[in-house]
Amino acid sequence: MRRLKCVVAYDGTDYSGFQVQPDQITVQGEIEAALRRITGEEIQIVGSGRTDAGVHARGQVFHFDTASGIPLEKWAFVLNNQLPDSIVIRSVEEAAPTFHARFDVKVKEYRYCIDNGPTPDVFRHRYADHIRHPLDLEAMRRAAAHLVGEHDFTSFCSAKTFVEDKVRTVYDLRVEQTGSEIWVVCRGNGFLYNMVRIIVGTLVEVGQGKRHPDEIKDILQARDREQAGKTAPAKGLTMWEVTY
Amino acid sequence: MRRLKCVVAYDGTDYSGFQVQPDQITVQGEIEAALRRITGEEIQIVGSGRTDAGVHARGQVFHFDTASGIPLEKWAFVLNNQLPDSIVIRSVEEAAPTFHARFDVKVKEYRYCIDNGPTPDVFRHRYADHIRHPLDLEAMRRAAAHLVGEHDFTSFCSAKTFVEDKVRTVYDLRVEQTGSEIWVVCRGNGFLYNMVRIIVGTLVEVGQGKRHPDEIKDILQARDREQAGKTAPAKGLTMWEVTY
Repeated sequence: MRRLKCVVAYDGTDYSGFQVQPDQITVQGEIEAALRRITGEEIQIVGSGRTDAGVHARGQVFHFDTASGIPLEKWAFVLNNQLPDSIVIRSVEEAAPTFHARFDVKVKEYRYCIDNGPTPDVFRHRYADHIRHPLDLEAMRRAAAHLVGEHDFTSFCSAKTFVEDKVRTVYDLRVEQTGSEIWVVCRGNGFLYNMVRIIVGTLVEVGQGKRHPDEIKDILQARDREQAGKTAPAKGLTMWEVTY
Repeated sequence: MRRLKCVVAYDGTDYSGFQVQPDQITVQGEIEAALRRITGEEIQIVGSGRTDAGVHARGQVFHFDTASGIPLEKWAFVLNNQLPDSIVIRSVEEAAPTFHARFDVKVKEYRYCIDNGPTPDVFRHRYADHIRHPLDLEAMRRAAAHLVGEHDFTSFCSAKTFVEDKVRTVYDLRVEQTGSEIWVVCRGNGFLYNMVRIIVGTLVEVGQGKRHPDEIKDILQARDREQAGKTAPAKGLTMWEVTY
């Protein structure tokens, strides 16, 4: 047996999220079905974390154990041949038998894309949320600065969460512009359920002038989901990179 | 009554082409249904030309006549509200009553996108054809040069065509590279059925070393579809711009 570590990109539009769920088409389900066809083994993969329905990945990481003798350099090609076009294995490497894709995560990076052009870019309609009126990026950046660091993110977490400890560290939260696209880049040691989407939804309300940038301090302190902004739509979010 | 000229972009992946067909979901069908809901009129739009199933557009043009009093500057917004996310009206302007979206075309530009990276870019899987092994761009450019000008393009036209006159003028045929993407840009006074896709399919065979660049001259002269290369997949093709 050996343990393999894989990096996978996916267009999450047509999946009910990453994690296997009964009677749903999921990314994990597709990958495990491909592994079954290739190896004949009943393999369960372990992802770095789940992503919600409609959320994409550029660098999701998972591991699995196999007795298959397929040479390392052939794995990505063989897997991609068995996977739909919307899931692409980017790399496969051998990992230590103790490597764990979820427990060993050091940093996760998510990026959220807002199409802020006057009319939507049709070739980005699956990967960006269109907001028609120009956003005030300077205000969004001032607001974002309040979220960097170690905080209790209860206000920025779906009320449906059962996790007890809601303290997380955001290392970096940038608001960048490329043409008519605005990218919110968020790096942290871990994220609560819907946390990036609620952060983005709140920053957007600041960018629309509906909230003052310094309100973020009060929202954090309130520890109350009701105080923050709307959850931004799933389609703009991409799990960008996982660092171990 | 007034005549309106519209520019529309669409993700053609999920449509049976532009033109209305019985029992099929088409771009024209979606636009006409939206116009019916907005105006109450039975409007038939006239496109600059059809696009095949799976082919996209950035700048398809159509015209229609309406008695509706909707102000010109509201039209795009009102239409986009009624259209699926995969069809976006980019502009609406008033045209002369004699303007005709098909008959008045001067130049059409198509672009074909090849993803030539070692693994496919999952966010381009609907809009680019993935070719894994690096293509020889210089050979493709040499081959392309033979196609520029006025030629009988019978060899680069689907055998299913009923058009008599197969002489067309290609003004420009460029092979460009942007990162791992190769773009074939083709401008001409008109294109035969599948012409751009057969040109691209043949250039790809040159880029793969399966054909010599100067073979193009013989293929043109043969006036025989069998002599040219395969028809490149629809998904890489985009109707880029129509000039009047």
